[in-house]
Amino acid sequence: MKVINILEKYAAFEAQWSPRVIAELNGQQVLLAKIQGEFVWHAHAEEDELFHVVKGQLRMEFRDRIEVVNPGEIIVIPKGVEHRPCADEETWILLFEPLSTKHTGEVVAEITKSTYPRI
Amino acid sequence: MKVINILEKYAAFEAQWSPRVIAELNGQQVLLAKIQGEFVWHAHAEEDELFHVVKGQLRMEFRDRIEVVNPGEIIVIPKGVEHRPCADEETWILLFEPLSTKHTGEVVAEITKSTYPRI
Repeated sequence: MKVINILEKYAAFEAQWSPRVIAELNGQQVLLAKIQGEFVWHAHAEEDELFHVVKGQLRMEFRDRIEVVNPGEIIVIPKGVEHRPCADEETWILLFEPLSTKHTGEVVAEITKSTYPRI
Repeated sequence: MKVINILEKYAAFEAQWSPRVIAELNGQQVLLAKIQGEFVWHAHAEEDELFHVVKGQLRMEFRDRIEVVNPGEIIVIPKGVEHRPCADEETWILLFEPLSTKHTGEVVAEITKSTYPRI
């Protein structure tokens, strides 16, 4: 039950596309990630995923449209929906998702991380 | 999959101690609340609860100590732990908790809300 300062946690790592776990509750995890560029197209068959933008700008691509998410904004991706997170500048995102969620769903790419460090 | 702007959602209500639902995912809900003063002592037998401070200052009281939570900070209350959220000034909090979570646990007080409006 320690207080977690989000910006201090972001200061503790630099790697992009490499989520860090900052909290776990109810079988869910809270992740921080720094992203820039284009991720891979993927979906999570059983997990909904929440993205909360802290800094920068997230361009969430769907097969039929794009949603732009700015700091202080949230988007929820329902399970099964293909998406591709992209960011022109380095963007800091906070994610809520089940512990079972795989980084790139059933897609395995060079960018895929199989485990997330706890910070 | 609409973008949710957190500050716009806060602008849509004034009532204190009256959480609003802004998103649901994986059997969990994301709530916004405006709080000021002292809540009631309570615990949630089966649910962990995450508090994220957006504005103001949350004073989370436990039976043996107090944790001060400022904007940009998070605290997770594990299930079964008695707590009392308090705030001297109006404070805006974002909560992440299971859909089953009761406002004041098994305690029923005048302040207790049995349902939360979706905004």
